[in-house]
Amino acid sequence: MRSTLEFLVYDWLHAESLTARSRYADHSRETFDAVWDTCERIAREKYAPFNRTVDTQEPSFDGEKVIQPACTGEARKAYADSGMLSAAQPYEQGGMQLPYVVEAAANSFFACASISIGSNLLTVGNANLLRVHGTPMQQQVFADNAFNGRWAGTMALSEPQAGSSLSDIATRAEPDGADFEADPLGARYRLKGNKMWISSGDHELTENIVHLVLAKIPGPDGKLIPGVKGISLFIVPKKLVDTDGKLTGERNDVALAGLNHKLGWRGTTNTLLNFGEGKYPVRGGAGAIGYLVGRPHEGLKCMFHMMNEARIGIGMAATMLGLAGYYASLDYAKNRPQGRPMTEGGKDASSPQVAIIEHADVKRMLLAQKAYCEGALALNLYCAQLVDEGRTGTPEEAARAKLLLEVLTPIAKSWPSENCLEANSLAIQIHGGYGYTRDFPVEQYWRDNRLNMIHEGTHGIQAADLLGRKVLMQGGAGLQLLATTIHATIERALQQPALAAYANQLAQALQEVGSATKKAWATGNPQEALANAVPYMQAFGHMVLAWVWLDVALTVLQRDAALSIAANAGRMGAVRYFYHYELPQITAWLQVVRARDLTCAQLPAEAF
Amino acid sequence: MRSTLEFLVYDWLHAESLTARSRYADHSRETFDAVWDTCERIAREKYAPFNRTVDTQEPSFDGEKVIQPACTGEARKAYADSGMLSAAQPYEQGGMQLPYVVEAAANSFFACASISIGSNLLTVGNANLLRVHGTPMQQQVFADNAFNGRWAGTMALSEPQAGSSLSDIATRAEPDGADFEADPLGARYRLKGNKMWISSGDHELTENIVHLVLAKIPGPDGKLIPGVKGISLFIVPKKLVDTDGKLTGERNDVALAGLNHKLGWRGTTNTLLNFGEGKYPVRGGAGAIGYLVGRPHEGLKCMFHMMNEARIGIGMAATMLGLAGYYASLDYAKNRPQGRPMTEGGKDASSPQVAIIEHADVKRMLLAQKAYCEGALALNLYCAQLVDEGRTGTPEEAARAKLLLEVLTPIAKSWPSENCLEANSLAIQIHGGYGYTRDFPVEQYWRDNRLNMIHEGTHGIQAADLLGRKVLMQGGAGLQLLATTIHATIERALQQPALAAYANQLAQALQEVGSATKKAWATGNPQEALANAVPYMQAFGHMVLAWVWLDVALTVLQRDAALSIAANAGRMGAVRYFYHYELPQITAWLQVVRARDLTCAQLPAEAF
Repeated sequence: MRSTLEFLVYDWLHAESLTARSRYADHSRETFDAVWDTCERIAREKYAPFNRTVDTQEPSFDGEKVIQPACTGEARKAYADSGMLSAAQPYEQGGMQLPYVVEAAANSFFACASISIGSNLLTVGNANLLRVHGTPMQQQVFADNAFNGRWAGTMALSEPQAGSSLSDIATRAEPDGADFEADPLGARYRLKGNKMWISSGDHELTENIVHLVLAKIPGPDGKLIPGVKGISLFIVPKKLVDTDGKLTGERNDVALAGLNHKLGWRGTTNTLLNFGEGKYPVRGGAGAIGYLVGRPHEGLKCMFHMMNEARIGIGMAATMLGLAGYYASLDYAKNRPQGRPMTEGGKDASSPQVAIIEHADVKRMLLAQKAYCEGALALNLYCAQLVDEGRTGTPEEAARAKLLLEVLTPIAKSWPSENCLEANSLAIQIHGGYGYTRDFPVEQYWRDNRLNMIHEGTHGIQAADLLGRKVLMQGGAGLQLLATTIHATIERALQQPALAAYANQLAQALQEVGSATKKAWATGNPQEALANAVPYMQAFGHMVLAWVWLDVALTVLQRDAALSIAANAGRMGAVRYFYHYELPQITAWLQVVRARDLTCAQLPAEAF
Repeated sequence: MRSTLEFLVYDWLHAESLTARSRYADHSRETFDAVWDTCERIAREKYAPFNRTVDTQEPSFDGEKVIQPACTGEARKAYADSGMLSAAQPYEQGGMQLPYVVEAAANSFFACASISIGSNLLTVGNANLLRVHGTPMQQQVFADNAFNGRWAGTMALSEPQAGSSLSDIATRAEPDGADFEADPLGARYRLKGNKMWISSGDHELTENIVHLVLAKIPGPDGKLIPGVKGISLFIVPKKLVDTDGKLTGERNDVALAGLNHKLGWRGTTNTLLNFGEGKYPVRGGAGAIGYLVGRPHEGLKCMFHMMNEARIGIGMAATMLGLAGYYASLDYAKNRPQGRPMTEGGKDASSPQVAIIEHADVKRMLLAQKAYCEGALALNLYCAQLVDEGRTGTPEEAARAKLLLEVLTPIAKSWPSENCLEANSLAIQIHGGYGYTRDFPVEQYWRDNRLNMIHEGTHGIQAADLLGRKVLMQGGAGLQLLATTIHATIERALQQPALAAYANQLAQALQEVGSATKKAWATGNPQEALANAVPYMQAFGHMVLAWVWLDVALTVLQRDAALSIAANAGRMGAVRYFYHYELPQITAWLQVVRARDLTCAQLPAEAF
């Protein structure tokens, strides 16, 4: 995995060139490597050995405290001690000022070793949101203590009756006394409501937990404002703190109502939290104390800042679970003797069995996994570098990077969630019956990975975001920018005899996607356009991945035209696989999009 | 589900017409219905309520006995008491002389309610094999006591080093004394070896367990004969019995070496069994006592009789797990309010939320499940009726049915295993976060169903069987017969304006599959032909399912041209879905088959 990361980050994305920028001037490949060395070691020592432990020793709740195996706390401590929580933060705030692409690659070691033992993504995302939208005091108290590892963070959006439909949240936030606006930690409110699906919503891993909570401030008539317009964002700490970041000794009225018992991803608690139900009355009032972040009624906009980061993080999680399965099944395939090669003369039963990697169908399943997972990794690292461009590029570069990232985010999240899950299924299949047992890790990867199509915006939500918003935004400028970017790759690939046919195939795919986009919206009716948003997203994603692989192929051939290095032969194999086996499928998927097919949408409920 | 079974079995397959045959002359729709009533009731009372119980209370082994929850034994007893074990047996042997298609439909109630609580399929398959290949004494002792519910049966093929590659089994069977051929229960051997993946290999549910074991009789040089030619078949009872079927009180030397801890399907034990290791020495000799079935060295041929039945049974199991998920997610979709309909004017946040079945993407996921699972059910029932035709048709009809069944068996097994698993994933997706918890049944269906692509011949084995054997057998006669059968449906559908376009689409698909078959074998080199056997099987399966749905559509329109019944509108919706969303994919899948694409097969192991 390390060599794949190095190839993608250094050879393909030229991440070293970022060190020419003032923010990263003190860095070099050596400092990047040193961070990776540390992360690789911690992941190997503190994460990987305990991946099954956190699956079998699911978190439990004794009525007061959440109980988790000791390895969870030890992994968390090692991670925090490494400084990775603040890796991207500026030096003056104790950070490493690391490029995001290098940070993302570093975090991938942990994701591959044990996705669910760590939940640092949320803590960092939470604190990053406060960096952008919090007051200086909120940043100093809540963000700094997240980045330094003292406290953990969550995002509390969903409610039992409001999952994908955030406009329906019913948690109320009312001003806490006449002086509510005078609190130095931010305008102080009292919150009442129930939040569902809160990852890391309760645990004993840190001194405190900082919840970022969406709630509605009632209008003058005392009623909640319908729709997303009424939503505001609050900091609600589990334990109250003063302006120095010291615990005041007061428990806030945030109560764990229950732990969800999940199919996988069991190392991380997932909780139902009751805010202000009165279990922990605080400061003589009713409701959990929360501090407003940003302006009233603009909470969702603030939260989306965190959700976009989270979505790339989910894409990376799905990818690393996929890769973990790939490596496990590759190892198994190289070492498991079974059967004999198919030859023209039949099989010679008296010859010894061969390793199953010699069988064509096993190779097919391995190459599919490699094409899915290394391709997804390349895409997610590309997106991570767009974040760096957005932060440190010239104004023009930054604007371009941000727009491209907007269009690619639904793909970076959804494509690995779907395809690296399929990769995990292939990893099971290669193991045969052994893969169906809990003696091998692949069944857990598959279970863990099934979450990724659901959380941080379901597949359906991502598809509606892509076809309903992202390809339309700024008059289609995002889609146009992506097309231009892809065409640049196509032009270069057309110069390479080995790639010209693929370049033409990609140009055709791009044309098909563009045409389907137009036809979907030809009537301007969102009901018709979005009826097949998911097949559209699947085809769009395959087109994007084909582009990523073609661009990777250019780097491979540039550095090793003879493919004398086995890894490069493998990469070219994955490219061929993707163009021969995967990309041709998009024509069928787009057919219903082009036709604005309403077969599903119009079938009445009683006909099912 | 009952109405779907009735429609398929009575309206579509005209199963009542079987009662015109002498074997089924005493039957009528009323007697069939009565059997279904009984099975539906037992499944509802003794199976469904305990599906989660058998998942959470996995079998354990205390060193002497296997411990399972009481519900397992109660379900087994209710099933045996119902007479279903011998449903297809003749009256004079205590059976009901039920057509297989009616029996398969009856068993589907249990599979839908709890697939893993029952393992009667193996007992019946075991006893059916003895009916065909056993001596009269073996039938009387071992088959009769399986059909009457006293004993259970297994099939013991795999070994730790020999899973898909049965030619490599190393279990030895040596004649037991000079008089070994004189035993009234069959030529008596002593077996030594280890068997892996034996479902229901040990339990306390029945008085005895009858293992059908593949082992090799050494040649004159004392060595095992390489390849499948050396394989023979033996009856190895867990406890020895006399010719009256009474237990002699002697424990045979069959020892449970371990239980496999599985991803799902936990209600059925899956075991590693040691034969003749000396844990239970018996009758002063070494080795487990076994009785030869059929002739020496013809064991695999005998066993295949059981495996073909088992493969249809697996297809049905995958189908019913898929349907169980469909029904669960349909119920959820009708009752879960979330979001608002997409309208041309946007969404009105102040209107109440709607049930999620109103959303186009949820309908798409429901209709996909319906098309997969009801289509798979139709195919499996069709195959079951072919079994009846093979048994009771005229010699010509019987030969035709058997040949068609040979070609369809790999599809009946593999297609539901793959596509009804995908249906289960969609059922999870519809539930959102709730689907990822163990509070809802869908995650278990998905875990349970993952086994079906592995056991009774993996996906890769099925594909090699289809493209390497079944479409070639008898000079391609099987494939030709299938094509003729499909063309008959096409001809009828061309007369129906609502179906003509689909008929043409199917004709095109059939042509594509036929052409790909030829091109795959154009060089006559199995390495090239079979390199893409799985994509071939996937396309072949989709073509078969498209045919099944078109044939079903003819029945729908014949009976309810106006689609005034909601269920018929739903069936036609599934037909449209299949032709619009699914069938068009086969072109891309067949492309690599036609090209004899060796991208995967030729990538060297070190390039992965």
